[in-house]
Amino acid sequence: MVAAEIICVGSELLLGQIVNSNAQFLSSELAELGIDCYFQITVGDNKERIKACLKQAVLRSDLLLLTGGLGPTADDLTTECVAELFGAQMVLDAKVMAHIEDWFARRGYPMPESNRKQAQRPEGAQLLPNSLGTAPGIIWEIDSKLIRDLGSQKESPSCLIMTLPGVPSEMESMWRTTARPFLEEKYQAAAIFSCELKHYGIGESALAEMYSELLDGSNPTIAPLAGRGECRLRVTAKSDTLENARHLAQGVIDDIKHKSGTLCYGIDKDNLESVVGKLLTKRNLKVAFAESCTGGLASKRLTDIAGSSQYLDLGIVAYGNEAKKKLLGVHQYILDTKGAVSPECAHAMATGIKAVAGADIGVGITGLAGPDGGTADKPVGLVYVALVADHFQRDKCLRFPPSISRAEIRQRTVSEALNMVRLYLLES
Amino acid sequence: MVAAEIICVGSELLLGQIVNSNAQFLSSELAELGIDCYFQITVGDNKERIKACLKQAVLRSDLLLLTGGLGPTADDLTTECVAELFGAQMVLDAKVMAHIEDWFARRGYPMPESNRKQAQRPEGAQLLPNSLGTAPGIIWEIDSKLIRDLGSQKESPSCLIMTLPGVPSEMESMWRTTARPFLEEKYQAAAIFSCELKHYGIGESALAEMYSELLDGSNPTIAPLAGRGECRLRVTAKSDTLENARHLAQGVIDDIKHKSGTLCYGIDKDNLESVVGKLLTKRNLKVAFAESCTGGLASKRLTDIAGSSQYLDLGIVAYGNEAKKKLLGVHQYILDTKGAVSPECAHAMATGIKAVAGADIGVGITGLAGPDGGTADKPVGLVYVALVADHFQRDKCLRFPPSISRAEIRQRTVSEALNMVRLYLLES
Repeated sequence: MVAAEIICVGSELLLGQIVNSNAQFLSSELAELGIDCYFQITVGDNKERIKACLKQAVLRSDLLLLTGGLGPTADDLTTECVAELFGAQMVLDAKVMAHIEDWFARRGYPMPESNRKQAQRPEGAQLLPNSLGTAPGIIWEIDSKLIRDLGSQKESPSCLIMTLPGVPSEMESMWRTTARPFLEEKYQAAAIFSCELKHYGIGESALAEMYSELLDGSNPTIAPLAGRGECRLRVTAKSDTLENARHLAQGVIDDIKHKSGTLCYGIDKDNLESVVGKLLTKRNLKVAFAESCTGGLASKRLTDIAGSSQYLDLGIVAYGNEAKKKLLGVHQYILDTKGAVSPECAHAMATGIKAVAGADIGVGITGLAGPDGGTADKPVGLVYVALVADHFQRDKCLRFPPSISRAEIRQRTVSEALNMVRLYLLES
Repeated sequence: MVAAEIICVGSELLLGQIVNSNAQFLSSELAELGIDCYFQITVGDNKERIKACLKQAVLRSDLLLLTGGLGPTADDLTTECVAELFGAQMVLDAKVMAHIEDWFARRGYPMPESNRKQAQRPEGAQLLPNSLGTAPGIIWEIDSKLIRDLGSQKESPSCLIMTLPGVPSEMESMWRTTARPFLEEKYQAAAIFSCELKHYGIGESALAEMYSELLDGSNPTIAPLAGRGECRLRVTAKSDTLENARHLAQGVIDDIKHKSGTLCYGIDKDNLESVVGKLLTKRNLKVAFAESCTGGLASKRLTDIAGSSQYLDLGIVAYGNEAKKKLLGVHQYILDTKGAVSPECAHAMATGIKAVAGADIGVGITGLAGPDGGTADKPVGLVYVALVADHFQRDKCLRFPPSISRAEIRQRTVSEALNMVRLYLLES
């Protein structure tokens, strides 16, 4: 069993100026590799304290992942501290020096002399290139004798040290391209395939119940995850190769897709707007939204997707009653007898926008997003969504509880509207 | 000088399932109190390892903040570990027991027997009540003798241990109501007043240059912060009382507001949409947006503000050319000769929406948000915004570089449009 430890170097972490996302990222990656991580340590840019943490870690852990402190300035101390701890010389790596010089040349900046430091590595360590920045990391398998010299009582102590940049994008890039593959090979870690099946229209506990027999499986494992009014089922399979892991997962994925039916709307990076966009494109249909309480959010979300001009020409934010009447043709009679927050008004808005936009599908949204403006009869959180197409109409009444914020009511209403469009496109 | 150390207990942190926001929160709070934090440690739900981290921390730090591991279950070990380290008995606190029983009674749940554990504290420690949940924390000033018994070489070693819940909302609530005031008094920490002056239309370095002489000040301190196309100046003053700190800051705040003029649009939680909303309400004016590339985001952001129906009746998302012509009255001639992405089209859209909505201010937005659809002549990132009011018109050409994403182009364009409305309202 490999015991790993993460050491994050950077005073900005100790001042609370940034959240330590690197520790989370590396921990979850280690978990995926089946490597146990026992400690996450954060220490500032201080030589004495960095070395103390390093020494302790070398004596108790087999794998040390360090992040931060690889930059060119005087307070970037990580590599130096690692070298000093083991009494190693720093040597200049010509290849990395050339990479750094090239990095500056391509950007047309003169290279500051201080960047020369970044091409140095402790003698015996290998350098890890940094494709996104100038700070390379190192991989160093420490000699048992050096560890015993530090006071280890173990018979054949071993420790692998990896240093990674502190900037998350650079760290993650180096991790994916060099560090993780190295660890996978060294520890013959299993190949992992993982994906998320996105569901809409079912709660976390109902989803867990629906798949209770699968939740006990050990390979693949299934985990329900919830958030922002949606649910996901994460399927994770391990095998010797990625291909085999994917194959192992595929059976379960197919079963879930079949059993969930239209409750499962997509996978991984899909969201409701991208899925609706794909369905509209495929069917060569157009949609238009008439929005009251969501104030443009439905059109905004659908146009978040590049290429959405294929299926969206027009949207109307009809916040006031005059706008509902004048642009969408909602009758005064409906406003007088049923009110603006009513299924009738939502329906009239949907019919109106369909006609004005010349769209195949019109959606009307009207409700009370709060926090003020509710009555006993029509409380904050009451929203009507209507969908109208040729020879088709459907409406839905949403009732959000008082604990849900204005922003959340608006987001969830639009998700519901997009899902209604999705279901119509699947069923019609 | 007090040296603090934060220990976060929880295997979910070591598995990377959640990001350690508690460490960041507590670190930034300690920084505000002027207390140096030298280490953040994360350890799993394992007695031996928790005790090892605790012992090390007691020997090197004066103040220990622990989070997590206060729950009722078998893997909640924090309080137990603290007691065991110092050989203290656990005693039941009748008052806390009553609070926990009451918590369950008010919710109509039977209290599980395991929750009894949460009413226990090491003999000598004080309990900190938890207003939001059942897990109380402790404050314990450790006797010098106990620290020497652990091996401290210091003459009069001291250590204050505080345990806080792991759930961020409970932790923050306990911190604010009990823990922080205790530390402020114990360490006679200065009272701190801090606020952010929000700027729009000036970059971080230009802002820093403008206030270079203030940046060197020590009390109040001024720090420029940048993010999402906006800049903030943080003013922080320390004094014996909050009132005096506020007074100290006020002079600088007034100076900055005066010098920045309309570049400074608000303070702390203000955003462009809330400030524009307040100005419109005050002037009793209405605005309407005709949006192409922003697809409804401008109306959406303005209607994020509760009460926005006071000043926004209508918005039109005119994504296609037909919609621009039909609903906004943009002439075919403009589309043919200038194109949809032109100042002329933006202007016609603004004029059109002003008329259709019967608004005092009309804003037209048209451009290329990408990633596709750009030409050499009109590249992705080219956006025109036009504002039309009675006897007033202004337009602006925005050119976003290729590194800016579609989402970012849309957000920044809307910020720019809102700022144009703000400036018009201030100047007209």
